[in-house]
Amino acid sequence: MLQDTLQRGQQLTDSALDRLLPSETQRPASIHKAMRHSVFAGGKRLRPILCIESGRLIAGSVPVGIENLCAALEMLHTYSLIHDDLPALDNDDLRRGRPTSHKVFGEAIAILAGDALQTQAYEVLAGLQCSAEARVRMIEEIARRTGTVDGMIGGQVVDLEAEHTRPDLSTLEYIHRSKTAALITASVVSGGLFAGADEPAVTKLRSFGEAIGLAFQIVDDILDVTQSSAQLGKTAGKDSAAEKATYPALFGIEKSRQKAGELFKIASESLQLFGPRADTLKQLASFLVDRKH
Amino acid sequence: MLQDTLQRGQQLTDSALDRLLPSETQRPASIHKAMRHSVFAGGKRLRPILCIESGRLIAGSVPVGIENLCAALEMLHTYSLIHDDLPALDNDDLRRGRPTSHKVFGEAIAILAGDALQTQAYEVLAGLQCSAEARVRMIEEIARRTGTVDGMIGGQVVDLEAEHTRPDLSTLEYIHRSKTAALITASVVSGGLFAGADEPAVTKLRSFGEAIGLAFQIVDDILDVTQSSAQLGKTAGKDSAAEKATYPALFGIEKSRQKAGELFKIASESLQLFGPRADTLKQLASFLVDRKH
Repeated sequence: MLQDTLQRGQQLTDSALDRLLPSETQRPASIHKAMRHSVFAGGKRLRPILCIESGRLIAGSVPVGIENLCAALEMLHTYSLIHDDLPALDNDDLRRGRPTSHKVFGEAIAILAGDALQTQAYEVLAGLQCSAEARVRMIEEIARRTGTVDGMIGGQVVDLEAEHTRPDLSTLEYIHRSKTAALITASVVSGGLFAGADEPAVTKLRSFGEAIGLAFQIVDDILDVTQSSAQLGKTAGKDSAAEKATYPALFGIEKSRQKAGELFKIASESLQLFGPRADTLKQLASFLVDRKH
Repeated sequence: MLQDTLQRGQQLTDSALDRLLPSETQRPASIHKAMRHSVFAGGKRLRPILCIESGRLIAGSVPVGIENLCAALEMLHTYSLIHDDLPALDNDDLRRGRPTSHKVFGEAIAILAGDALQTQAYEVLAGLQCSAEARVRMIEEIARRTGTVDGMIGGQVVDLEAEHTRPDLSTLEYIHRSKTAALITASVVSGGLFAGADEPAVTKLRSFGEAIGLAFQIVDDILDVTQSSAQLGKTAGKDSAAEKATYPALFGIEKSRQKAGELFKIASESLQLFGPRADTLKQLASFLVDRKH
């Protein structure tokens, strides 16, 4: 059942991405190869899956055309990974078990491929099959949640600046809320908006997204400490090597697990308004908190 | 008269940028400092000025709220400059007479500042004071013209790959049309769309933008050869040092000037439909072709 949800989300997203991204032979070929290399690198399509299930919760069935929104969200996520991995930032050679963009295509193309994925995401969002009002609202939400003030880029900046320091809890929470939870929240909210959610529903979806997004990052940090590189498909132990700000570093594994559990509870409670229709989203949340890689 | 047009465009754009960009004290301060460093580095605000005059041509007076569109266009232009200047790309230390972003803030923040300016541009575009339909149409136009297929990033990629080769005319035209003329065209077209231009008017504005955008790049390349760094406010002679693909390198100065003149003629003719209302845009075009820095 959950397996079906995951698989459907992945398939819808992958086929939309394949349709929307320029082919590898389209001039200039190098950038299109680089965009596809990172987009089709075995990502779990977590944000798209949350988006679809949020849309399905509101509409009663998977809304027609939501897969293009999913593709745009995954383009934005992938752009952030390509840039995060650059030598000037996290300097990572491996991502999802494959060499990172700059290792394969060089730094110049990696920078431009990230830029291009961001650009194309907005082109796709502007052309979604829903009202123009819903589209501009989604674009504002997504841009804000990936921006500097309390969005993804802001989280990345504070994360970089917190390396080799021992940040306080408020800094750590800012990093996680902004760097990871913000785009997850935008995915859940935009799925609801695409399906025509009203304001009370959007508010509940937002609370759900924020809680599950933060839980997701805490679990990620726990796995970085407890799992091997082979299990994770990326370099394990990187956080402590770089003296990154993480929950396990600040509170230890046990307290971090507890915190993730509390956030899961908040996430579930946010969905009470929707009754049993929200069961799949709750299952997804539980899967994200209990995962092993 | 032309001086007034230029000054009004600069003032409207600068004050919108100052209002829209987070302040230098807003957390995380480093990225906001970096964004403002490059945005307020003495740019000529050429794209915004073309956008305003295009909107004024359609609406009869400067359309209320167009300055936010101008700010978004300038954010996109500035993001592309920050990334172009990076060591992995053009490796330029000087831009508009000031040290480039990565020289002041380091490469990581420079990459993220470019990313953030792109992100914020779309947030601003989604919130413009015009119909949601016009906003999504502008976003699609601007994203496509700054993307990979025949937009700004595509031009940058082919430009990088053409270094140290002797590209043919079709490659050179692709580079110039995509790297420079595309965003100039989007500026002219989006100004018209903001003011409510109908399809025939948009088509004419597009032809004007394409011709004047290409002429602008040819003149830029001529100035790189004929002017000093002090006159240009950036490192002169960079193109030939890097064996960049340029019109002067392929055809010599005289033929390049001729080509720019022909394009100016095409640009002027595109505006015939509008009669004397188009005089200011024509004046602007003439100024861009005849400029000395």
